[in-house]
Amino acid sequence: MYAVNRRFILKSLAASVGLALTPISFASSARTLPVNKQAADFVIHNDLPWALETMRGSFGFGPITPLSRFFVRNNLPMPPASILDRADEWSFKVEGCVGSGSLSLRDLKSMRVQTVASVLQCSGNGRAYSSHNPSGSQWSVGAAGCALWTGVAVADIFEKFGGVSNEAAFLTGTGGESLPEGIDASMVAVERSVPIQKGLEDCMLVWEMNGAPLPLAHGGPLRLLVPGYFGVNNVKWLTRLAATAQESTAKIQQSGYRLRAIGESGGLQHPSMWRMPVKSWLNGPGANGRPVKAGAAMLYGVAFSGERGVDKVEVSGDNGKSWQDAQWIGPDLGVNAWRTFSIGVTLGVGENRYVTRAIDSAGDIQPELAIPNERGYGNNGWADHGLNILAVDELPETASADSGDVPMNVIIEQASKEKTYTLSKTAQRGRAIFTAQSQPNCSVCHTLDAAQAKGLVGPNLDKLKPGLAQIEAAVVQGVGAMPAYGGQLSGSEVEALSAFVFEGTR
Amino acid sequence: MYAVNRRFILKSLAASVGLALTPISFASSARTLPVNKQAADFVIHNDLPWALETMRGSFGFGPITPLSRFFVRNNLPMPPASILDRADEWSFKVEGCVGSGSLSLRDLKSMRVQTVASVLQCSGNGRAYSSHNPSGSQWSVGAAGCALWTGVAVADIFEKFGGVSNEAAFLTGTGGESLPEGIDASMVAVERSVPIQKGLEDCMLVWEMNGAPLPLAHGGPLRLLVPGYFGVNNVKWLTRLAATAQESTAKIQQSGYRLRAIGESGGLQHPSMWRMPVKSWLNGPGANGRPVKAGAAMLYGVAFSGERGVDKVEVSGDNGKSWQDAQWIGPDLGVNAWRTFSIGVTLGVGENRYVTRAIDSAGDIQPELAIPNERGYGNNGWADHGLNILAVDELPETASADSGDVPMNVIIEQASKEKTYTLSKTAQRGRAIFTAQSQPNCSVCHTLDAAQAKGLVGPNLDKLKPGLAQIEAAVVQGVGAMPAYGGQLSGSEVEALSAFVFEGTR
Repeated sequence: MYAVNRRFILKSLAASVGLALTPISFASSARTLPVNKQAADFVIHNDLPWALETMRGSFGFGPITPLSRFFVRNNLPMPPASILDRADEWSFKVEGCVGSGSLSLRDLKSMRVQTVASVLQCSGNGRAYSSHNPSGSQWSVGAAGCALWTGVAVADIFEKFGGVSNEAAFLTGTGGESLPEGIDASMVAVERSVPIQKGLEDCMLVWEMNGAPLPLAHGGPLRLLVPGYFGVNNVKWLTRLAATAQESTAKIQQSGYRLRAIGESGGLQHPSMWRMPVKSWLNGPGANGRPVKAGAAMLYGVAFSGERGVDKVEVSGDNGKSWQDAQWIGPDLGVNAWRTFSIGVTLGVGENRYVTRAIDSAGDIQPELAIPNERGYGNNGWADHGLNILAVDELPETASADSGDVPMNVIIEQASKEKTYTLSKTAQRGRAIFTAQSQPNCSVCHTLDAAQAKGLVGPNLDKLKPGLAQIEAAVVQGVGAMPAYGGQLSGSEVEALSAFVFEGTR
Repeated sequence: MYAVNRRFILKSLAASVGLALTPISFASSARTLPVNKQAADFVIHNDLPWALETMRGSFGFGPITPLSRFFVRNNLPMPPASILDRADEWSFKVEGCVGSGSLSLRDLKSMRVQTVASVLQCSGNGRAYSSHNPSGSQWSVGAAGCALWTGVAVADIFEKFGGVSNEAAFLTGTGGESLPEGIDASMVAVERSVPIQKGLEDCMLVWEMNGAPLPLAHGGPLRLLVPGYFGVNNVKWLTRLAATAQESTAKIQQSGYRLRAIGESGGLQHPSMWRMPVKSWLNGPGANGRPVKAGAAMLYGVAFSGERGVDKVEVSGDNGKSWQDAQWIGPDLGVNAWRTFSIGVTLGVGENRYVTRAIDSAGDIQPELAIPNERGYGNNGWADHGLNILAVDELPETASADSGDVPMNVIIEQASKEKTYTLSKTAQRGRAIFTAQSQPNCSVCHTLDAAQAKGLVGPNLDKLKPGLAQIEAAVVQGVGAMPAYGGQLSGSEVEALSAFVFEGTR
C-alpha cells in the first residue's frame, strides 16, 4: 500500500508562513434546517449532505422523538424537494420475484397498512468516544431517535409479484439520491442488503413518520424500514426493492459499514452493520454542561436492543461498582422501540457522573467498553456514555436552567466575511490537483472555499476541517463513498493535495 | 326571559340599503400559526384566541398526532411567550391538602415521572353536524388529537402536602390566562373541576407533549392532564391545583360546558363535559373533497373511548345496514389513547360514503345519532361522521392526489384592503351600545372592525360572522365565558346591538 511521508508535509506547512495566494472571496451562510428543526436542538456536523445530531439535552422523557428534534444523516445530498409535489406518483421497481414490475406510493396506500415503532441509529453513533480518532462525523449520543413508522410490509409487496425467487438470499434496497456525473455509481450509490429472512419478517416501505408524511430529509416520500437495524440499511427515497442472490455490489455494502479491526480495510468477511446491540444512555438533567440545582433529581434516559427490546436498565453513580434498577417511564412500543427510564438520585454540589447498563430480552448485557474498530461503529460501551452533571447550590441568575428552550451553540458558524488563504508552495500545487488533475476531480464532490469548489456529494471540507492524517488516509484508501486515489496519484501528489486541503481549511 | 323581536331587526336590515357610516379603515393580516403549524393543515376558526381545527385529510395512519398538526382551542388569548423563557421557574399553588404551599416545574422534574397517551378533544367537536345551529366554533372532526404526555401524578403532588383534606370532593385546576380588566373574573376565568377520585387516580401535571417541551399554545410550560376527559378540563398554564369541597364557582364550570336540552340554560343539574364517550370516524382517503382513484382503497380512521379503550370498530358502506370489522393499524397506547384502524374496500366511480361505529371495552356502542343539546357538545353519532369519498377513473392532471402535502383553503382570508360599512339607523345606535354603553362594553372582549374594537378575550366577530339569532341569544343569555346582558339592556337596545354586529360583519 502507498505510504505517505508525514514528515515532509509537516515540514512544508512550517515553511508556509508568509506565502499568500490571491485572495478568494468567502461568503457562506448557514442553510435553513429541514423539517422545522431548530439550530438549538442540534450539533450540525455537516450541511451538504446533512449530518445533524440531536443535542443530548433535547431528548425528552417520552418514548417518541419528534420530527423537529430527530437526527439526520444523509450519505449524499437530498433529491430536490419537488419529488414531494406528487408524492403518490413516486414509483419504484420490484425485482427478484416470480414476476416483476413497479409500484407507486398510491398503490401501496391501497394495501394493508401497519404502524411500528423503531429506533433509527447511525452506525457511527458514539464514535466521538473512540480514542483512535476514526474518520466520520463525531457523533456522541444524538445520532439516534425513535419514531412511529407507517407503511406496508415488504412481504406483502413481494407477494403481489408471486413471492421471492428461489435464489433470493438478500433484500436489497436502492436509494434515490442524485448521483454526480463523473463518479462511478457503484462507489457512491446508496444501496444496501439485509438477509432475506429479515426482509420478509418485518421490513416495511414507509411513507409516514410520527403521524406526518415522511419529510424529504428523512427519505420522503418513501423509504425502507429495517426495524432494529442500523440507520444505513433504511434506504431513503427508495427506487428499487429487490430480492437478490448476492449482497449489493455497491461500495457502501461491500466494504463500507463493516466492523473491522483498526487499520484493516472492510470486506465481506467483516460483519455488516445490521442489528443494533443493546445500548442505553442518560439524557438529563444537566446535559450539555448546563448546571442543575443540587439535591433530589430525577435522571432519565433511553434503552433499546434491536429486535429484542430491553428487560432492565441499571444505573450506577460510582462508575459501575454498584448498580440500581431504573423504572420505565411510558408505554412499551415494541421490541424495536426504545424505552425511556428514570431513577431518583441526590446530586451533591460539584460534578456527578452516572452511567447506565441495559440488559435485553435475550440476556445480552451492555458492555463496559465496545470493541474498538476502524470506523468507530456500533459503540455501546456504558463507560463511554455516562452523563456528567454539574450540580450547584444556587443556579446563576442569567444562566438558564435545563429546560430545553434555551438556544445552545452550534458548530457551523454563520460566516459572511471575506477570507484570504495563506498556502505553502506544496499546497499551491495541491490546489491544481484538487480542482483539475485528479480523476474525478475533488471539486465534483466536495465544497472547499479555497478551491472555489461547490460539490455536494462528499462532506463540506470547510466545515469538516479534517486533520492531516485523516485527509491522507481518505485520499489514498478512500472513505465511505469516496474512491481511493492511491493508484492514480504519486506520493508527492498525495502530499501536495493533502497539504492544500489542510491549509485551506485552517 | 327577555324576548327578541326578530321581525323588527329583519325590517331594519331591509331599510338599511344606501345608508353609509363614515368609512373605517380595515387592515388585518393572518397571524403566524403557533408551533410550526402550517395553514394547509388547519381550518382556522378564530385567531385570538386560537381555534384551529386539524383538516380531516391531515390526520395520519399512526396513533399519535404530531404537534405540527394538533388542534388548538384556547378559551382566552395565551399568556405572553416570555413565560417559556424560564420555564422551570413556573410555579403554582397547591391547596386543599393537610398542608399547602407552592411548587415549581423544577420541583416536579425531580419527582417520579410518567408518560401516558391520551386523546384531547374539544367538547364541541362535531358541532358542525348539529341541525339546530348551536353557537361556537363549527368543528367537524378535527378538534381532537392524540398525544404522549409526560409529567407527574396529581396524587404524588398532593401526597407531598400530606394528602387531600377530608372534605375534598373535586380536583380544581386554575388556568394562567391573562384576564382583561373590567370583566368579572369569575365570568371568564378558566377554572375547572373534576371528581377528586379521578384526580387522584390518573390526573397529571404535564410539561412535555410528544417528546418536546409543552408549547405555549398547548398550555406550556405546565398544564393539567385529565386522561380521557374532554379538553376543557385539561387546564392550561396551570397556576393553582386544589382539592376542593365544591366545584369551581367559575361560569365555565357552573353553567358552561353542560349537556342541556336545546333552549335551556346550563346549571349544576346538567352533566358536565367530563368523560368522552365512545367515538370513531374515518380520515381518508378522499377527505376534504379530494378525488381518489376508483378501485381498491384502504380506508383509515380513529376510534376511542375515554378511560376504556375500544374493543372493535365496524365499517359500513350502506349507511349502517351491514357492518364489517376493521383492523387495528398500530400499537395500543392505552385506554385513553385512540387507536387507528383500516379496512380495505373497493371504491366505485362517483360518490362513496362510509360510516364507522366503535364499541368500547365496557360494551358501549357508538350511537347512530347523539342526543341534540344546546351547545352541540359531545357529538359522537356515527351517521354524522361518515366520510364521502369521490372516486374517479382518472385523476385530473393538475388536481393533486390525496397526499397531505398540498395546501388547501383556510377560512381566514389575508385581507389588507380598505372597507366601508353600510349600517342601518338601528345598527348605528347599536354601535354606540357596543363601544360604550354596555357594561363592560363589548370592545373590551371582542374584535370588530366596524367598531374599531380590538378585544382579545372573546371570539373575533369579523371572523366568526355570527348569525342574527346567534348574536341575540349570546347578548341576552350569555355564551361560554360571555356574561348575559339581558338584565341591563332594553329590548330595543338588544335589537340595535344585534343589528350592528350582524350588519358590521357582512
